[in-house]
This record gives sequence, C-alpha cells and structure tokens, in this order.
Amino acid sequence: MTTSDSRLRSVHQTAYRVLYGDTDSGGVVYYANYLRYFEAGRTELLRHYGTSYRALEDQGFILPVVECKCRYKASAFYDDLLVIETTLVEVKKISCRFDYRILRESDQKLLVKGYTIHAVVNREGRLSRFPDDYLKILNLICDEK
Amino acid sequence: MTTSDSRLRSVHQTAYRVLYGDTDSGGVVYYANYLRYFEAGRTELLRHYGTSYRALEDQGFILPVVECKCRYKASAFYDDLLVIETTLVEVKKISCRFDYRILRESDQKLLVKGYTIHAVVNREGRLSRFPDDYLKILNLICDEK
Amino acid sequence: MTTSDSRLRSVHQTAYRVLYGDTDSGGVVYYANYLRYFEAGRTELLRHYGTSYRALEDQGFILPVVECKCRYKASAFYDDLLVIETTLVEVKKISCRFDYRILRESDQKLLVKGYTIHAVVNREGRLSRFPDDYLKILNLICDEK
Amino acid sequence: MTTSDSRLRSVHQTAYRVLYGDTDSGGVVYYANYLRYFEAGRTELLRHYGTSYRALEDQGFILPVVECKCRYKASAFYDDLLVIETTLVEVKKISCRFDYRILRESDQKLLVKGYTIHAVVNREGRLSRFPDDYLKILNLICDEK
Repeated sequence: MTTSDSRLRSVHQTAYRVLYGDTDSGGVVYYANYLRYFEAGRTELLRHYGTSYRALEDQGFILPVVECKCRYKASAFYDDLLVIETTLVEVKKISCRFDYRILRESDQKLLVKGYTIHAVVNREGRLSRFPDDYLKILNLICDEK
Repeated sequence: MTTSDSRLRSVHQTAYRVLYGDTDSGGVVYYANYLRYFEAGRTELLRHYGTSYRALEDQGFILPVVECKCRYKASAFYDDLLVIETTLVEVKKISCRFDYRILRESDQKLLVKGYTIHAVVNREGRLSRFPDDYLKILNLICDEK
Repeated sequence: MTTSDSRLRSVHQTAYRVLYGDTDSGGVVYYANYLRYFEAGRTELLRHYGTSYRALEDQGFILPVVECKCRYKASAFYDDLLVIETTLVEVKKISCRFDYRILRESDQKLLVKGYTIHAVVNREGRLSRFPDDYLKILNLICDEK
Repeated sequence: MTTSDSRLRSVHQTAYRVLYGDTDSGGVVYYANYLRYFEAGRTELLRHYGTSYRALEDQGFILPVVECKCRYKASAFYDDLLVIETTLVEVKKISCRFDYRILRESDQKLLVKGYTIHAVVNREGRLSRFPDDYLKILNLICDEK
C-alpha cells in the first residue's frame, strides 16, 4: 500500500509482526533489528513499483549501505504489528537514499526514524553507476506526486 | 584449548560471551542462537587443528548442514560466559557430524546438547566427496585419542 | 489460511519473504534462521485459532523450546517467498509439539522439515501445567479434522 | 587491551571473529550486524574498567540506545578477525555516547565508523539519571589520559 505524505512524496507502507527472536532481555526489540525492518521496507517499496533489488543484482550490481542512522523514540514489543514507512528521497547516478519511519499499528506511535544511503557497486566491487533503465524507474518513484 | 572426555575422543572448547542481541524478551538466549554458537564451535575446532572451513571453500566445496538437533536443558542469560564443547564424531567420504555441549562457565551447568550433520557440496551445488587431503585431516581429528 | 493434509490434521500456512539479512555468504538462508521461521509459524497458527502466545504469557506462563530438530532438504534464496506449514501434533498437560514444513512458494519445493517441543514454565521458572482454558483450546486445534 | 589515540583518550579494543551467520548473500557482513559488534565493544570496555552493564541493570537502570549512526567504508568477510575500538566520548547525568571504529586485524583496514547515544531509564521506563557511583566510574573512563 502506498500513501502520500504532506510533502507530496509517495510513502510506501509494509507491515511486520515482531518475533520473540527480534526482542532482547530488556523486553523490547533489539536496536540492530530495526535495520532489518528498513531492509524489508525498501525491498517492498521497489517491488510495489514493479522492480526489485534482485533485478538489479541480475544486471550485475549491488547496492551496499554506505551510511545509516537511526533515532529511537519509543520501544516496540513482542508481537507488536509494525508499519514500516519507506520513502525514496534522493536518487543520484551513483547512489540513492531511503528514509524510514516505523510505527506501531495499534496506537500509531512513532517508534523509530532513520535513513540509509546506498552506493552502486559492480561485480568487481568497484563503485559504479545505476544502469539507465533502473535509474529511470528510481527517478519515477522518487518524483511521484 | 582441547581436552579429552571419558570416551577418549578429543573435545575442543571455545568461549563465547552472551550479547544482549542474543537474548529475547523471555530474559534468556533465543533458541535459534545456539546454532550460531555451534557454528563458532566447529569453526574453532577446525582452526585448532591447523585447517579451516575457509580452506575447504577455497578448494571449491561447502559443507551445508543437512540435519541438526538441539536439546535445551537450562537457560543462558545476558552476559553469561559460555563454553562450547565441540567433537567431530563421524567422518564419511561425503559427510561428517559434530556433537556439541554448551555449558555456563561460572557454574559448569550443561545448558544445551546437540549435533549437526554436514554434506559435501561442490561449486555446482552437487553432492560431492571431501578432497583427499581434507578427508585425511578430518579423520585425524576424529580419531585423536 | 488453513488447509487439511492427508493425515486429516489441520495445517496452518503462513508466508515469509526472505531478507538479505537472513542469508549467508554461501548464498542461501543461514541454517539457524529456519528456527525463526518456525516461531513465526506457531505464533500465527495460535493467532488463527483466536488465541496467542502472548495470552499465555499474560497468565504467567511461558513455553520454552526444550527440543528441536531440522532436516534441510534444499536451499532457500534471497527474496524467495516461503510458505511455513505448521501443525500442532501433540498436546500434553505439561508440554506440546509443533511440526513444520517450509516450502518455496514459486515451485512448491520442500526445503526444510522439523519440529519443536515446548514445556510449560511458570513465572518462577518451574515446570508447570497449561492453564485449563488454554489446554482446551490447544486440544481443539490439535484434534481438528 | 587498551591503547591511547592521538586525542589522548583511552580506546578499548576487543576482538571478534566473523561467523557465517553474520554474513549475507552479498558475500559480506550484513550491515545490521555491526551494531551487534558495537554492543560487544561497549560491554567489554565497561568490563575492562571493573564495572559492567549488568551492574547498572542490577541497580534498576537500563541504557537504551536513543540514536546510532554507521558509516560503512569497506566490507568484512567470513572468518575475518575484527578489532572493535570503543571510546566513551561523552558522559552526562542522563546520557552518554560511545564512538566505534571497526578494523580488520590482518590488514588494519578501517571498515566501519559509528557511534551510539544512550539514555538512562529506570525500572518504570522513565528517563532518569545515572546512579552517583556509576556516573563517577563513567567520568573516570571518559577522562582517562
């Protein structure tokens, strides 16, 4: 499902149910696991728009994360249904950036905000550029109103 | 470090400190994570005997787990220092089996027992045989008294 | 969704999409992560029948895994959509057992089979019995034809 | 082991061997797992100075991460021996910040830089202050020359 936020950029939403295996003995989701949820968010955003991360891999490119940041506002608990909101906010020839907001479905409380920046790398492990057709799709997603 | 158990087969011991990220909101180590500890155990056993899992990979073979079993006797907690005891109990031309016992260092309590069985698979993903030199090493480890 | 298998016992199905974070550098899902999928399977089975694992916790009981076993038949890959089939096959006053089959949705290939056995433990960490009402629900699920 | 860097602040080093279970099908360590390594780093730093995170928990306080950031410079691979360098760079009455650098031991290549900021929270989940004795220790660590 995709909705528009106030900045008129498309926000993609995907749901995730917290497993026991995601939590820690503090009784809440372990902080590293939100980065897994970010991955689920960006993957499903791309799938929603008819492409996929796998499609890029099949062309010989990967998109490693070169930077990420998380701000933890409130805790998620075991069995919570989370909503991962993902937005593709920037597309360059050699990189892109996704922003994320993770909310609890039941009370719509904002739990985590963050972003990831990705570089394009080819099969030999060298910094590279997006293939043209893939870049076109990303720009369409990013500019969608 | 390596010690001999009553069955006169060499037992390799490796230590592991439990992270917050290994526990769950039940206050104990999540059950799946003991399989990670098993991996650490067999990796360090091979390294102790002068070979490695990576060495096998470099020859074009991998050792996927085809079966594993765990019996959970008692819980491990955050910050516990664990001792992973690993024994190579069986070596065949196309497979091998490791047994594991995980204890808490402070009270020597047995927490988990289990095993993993591994098949030899080549680069094309086909069932294969151990390379001769690697098989020789494994047999030496397995037979050590 | 729930279907009946040839043994006339209800089988619950839940879907899971493989993340990058679930795979390892062998190019396939890491063997420990199937135990996470098992957890998702039994949680969703209980939810489907109108109860939950959390409901049991709220009554002061937990259900730690005392034994688990996995047989790995074939590999799951990044971005595969998996089907986790879960069956509650045995309910006793102090324990229960779930069986699992994990298949790839696209080709219906069986990837993993396994089970988990759970004991009932109370707040003080002592072996205990299921509360009567919870036992009744589990027996209904287990006996369903 | 602890060394001094050019800024004359004590840097604590702890070692970690990369497991198969830490890597992903891109052939490198999955980006979320560096946050686990950060946790190992700060835990061992505190232990080195004669205190522990568990000691704080025993006094009824936890230290949830409220913000973290990672910059990924180069990839870690399966079986790499990593060095996690941790520095306590800031201590306030209600929060503290750790900085991290992760290097590969073999070539001393810098792989990841990052930080975590932690708030003090009491048993009721409210923002709180460090207990006096714990604050004293943290200030000693932070100011060490």
